[in-house]
Amino acid sequence: MAKAQNSDPKRTPVEEIGKINLLERLLSVTGASLNDTLRYGEEGEFCWISSHILLLEGIDFDLIYTPLKHLGYKSVLGAFGPIVAHNYTPESISINIGLSKRFFVEDIEELWSGIAAALDEYKIKSVNLNLSSSLTGLAISLSSEGKQPKEILVQTPKVQPTDLLCLTGNLGAAYMGLQLLEREKVLFNSNPAIQPKLDGYKFILQSYLNPQLNTSIKDLFETSKIIPSDGVFINNGLADAVKFICKKHNTGAKVFLDKIPIASHTFEIAEELNMDAITAALNGGDDFQILYVIPLSKYEELNKEIPQLDIIGHLTSNSGETLLITPDGAGINLKAQGWSEGVSD
Amino acid sequence: MAKAQNSDPKRTPVEEIGKINLLERLLSVTGASLNDTLRYGEEGEFCWISSHILLLEGIDFDLIYTPLKHLGYKSVLGAFGPIVAHNYTPESISINIGLSKRFFVEDIEELWSGIAAALDEYKIKSVNLNLSSSLTGLAISLSSEGKQPKEILVQTPKVQPTDLLCLTGNLGAAYMGLQLLEREKVLFNSNPAIQPKLDGYKFILQSYLNPQLNTSIKDLFETSKIIPSDGVFINNGLADAVKFICKKHNTGAKVFLDKIPIASHTFEIAEELNMDAITAALNGGDDFQILYVIPLSKYEELNKEIPQLDIIGHLTSNSGETLLITPDGAGINLKAQGWSEGVSD
Repeated sequence: MAKAQNSDPKRTPVEEIGKINLLERLLSVTGASLNDTLRYGEEGEFCWISSHILLLEGIDFDLIYTPLKHLGYKSVLGAFGPIVAHNYTPESISINIGLSKRFFVEDIEELWSGIAAALDEYKIKSVNLNLSSSLTGLAISLSSEGKQPKEILVQTPKVQPTDLLCLTGNLGAAYMGLQLLEREKVLFNSNPAIQPKLDGYKFILQSYLNPQLNTSIKDLFETSKIIPSDGVFINNGLADAVKFICKKHNTGAKVFLDKIPIASHTFEIAEELNMDAITAALNGGDDFQILYVIPLSKYEELNKEIPQLDIIGHLTSNSGETLLITPDGAGINLKAQGWSEGVSD
Repeated sequence: MAKAQNSDPKRTPVEEIGKINLLERLLSVTGASLNDTLRYGEEGEFCWISSHILLLEGIDFDLIYTPLKHLGYKSVLGAFGPIVAHNYTPESISINIGLSKRFFVEDIEELWSGIAAALDEYKIKSVNLNLSSSLTGLAISLSSEGKQPKEILVQTPKVQPTDLLCLTGNLGAAYMGLQLLEREKVLFNSNPAIQPKLDGYKFILQSYLNPQLNTSIKDLFETSKIIPSDGVFINNGLADAVKFICKKHNTGAKVFLDKIPIASHTFEIAEELNMDAITAALNGGDDFQILYVIPLSKYEELNKEIPQLDIIGHLTSNSGETLLITPDGAGINLKAQGWSEGVSD
């Protein structure tokens, strides 16, 4: 039957092209270009954006150490992240859950309790849900719509190759939390009688299991009349986010290593786990921070009105050149894990 | 670690409650009610609806006999179906594809060519795509937004327990196509040298592999000034759709067996495969027809202006009583496969 098609010898692994290049190539077929969200409805009073994520068990989460309630909460925030990053307000969400026979009503209710907590916190009234079967484990797809008055869209500045790169918070902690949980899982698997040692790791575990979305900056933008030119939700490390912004706007970027906020606790745990905290910040995942792109002309105002934002670098006109500047002034090419690995991120 | 949670003895299978009851219960936690789409944005000039489907390999499609291009095309139409059924126009789509290592760039391009063909046909300009990894096979999540001028929403009549149930086309053919393909797959697995016998089955195979969405009725509604009170995209058999409408609006329904349109070819193949064509129409899947709910007062106009619509029955005030009326006048309770089976549909 369809097997005959597979005799075609041309089989290119995704890694060979890279995920982002493949996305661009496919999107161009439909006249679309690279984006992390979808903007639509600009002919009305409001403009809309949608964010859509697909989370698959074994790839995006491990139920051995992720409580279902936490997973539900985190999934919703993961869907809202790109909306908030684009300066829109989440308004509605549609959730599809694929379940294998392993899951019972109580499990679904536990997952839903976390989802409902997040929806309550964000005052989301338009909600839909569907359940379907899955052969292998849990699959969660979330699609959320966000709104903005059209006048803000009109005022939004165009990205310039001098724009500032600003971060909503520290990086690398979630990745360290994940590494710690992975370590305990290995120990648990080798001897289930061993009790996990999780005391004293609250900060990194919370960062991974119970991340919060920093929406306060979005509110401060409103009061201080600063409108970012773009924003990207960091869920795959800082390097990936910077490269995404550069690819999208055809710019380069310089990120200053000593400006990247990393918590001292993250450094401590990194040392304990024999890992590098800076790599965790650049290439780890699940940080739930936002990288805002803000016009250089707002530099003074930013420092005065929104000192919580860390200015970590700026865009440049050297398209595609994304540099990490070390304290001694050397420039190292930023490497994004997800990109080189193709779809495996 | 999280294992401790599983010591709770209360483990209720989804079948015990039923999918639709569980959906209602979960949605009520967030103040939402049962729906197949999500309506939002009603404060602007336009109102919006979103449709969101998750398709998992091995459950929703079998790549042994489903060409990737057909799968892509059909997936998009499956996402547009509920939007068209609600009398909205699809405007945008966001697609997430989860891929295991089995899939190469050429496969993704093949899948995308079908997706792009559908998007081109429906003139969709707002498109987004993301790729991620999957442990086991292909997962496709599609989220689409549809638009309607607010004035139509305002004019939309409320569902009444006398409303007519109207179908856009014949049922059961897609299910017969699927059964034929399953038969050939079994033969092929037992002896790969056997060539599939698919000649003479074009109608049912097309119905399954290359379904079309009947959007012409939606256009006729516009010209004839008939506005349906509701509509549901039938993707899980007529019985499921009728029961869904009744549950949503707290009504009953009568469907007249001899009014259900089934193609003579579907009857022939059903006989050949030792199956029942009526069961295929009531409980088979993938028909891609729409069941419209239309005020009784439009009966004459409907017959005159949109004779293509088959009036197959009507709603009643006997909440939850969904009856199939046989030609001799007997009433049989409609059974929906998906409902009794919980999530396995």
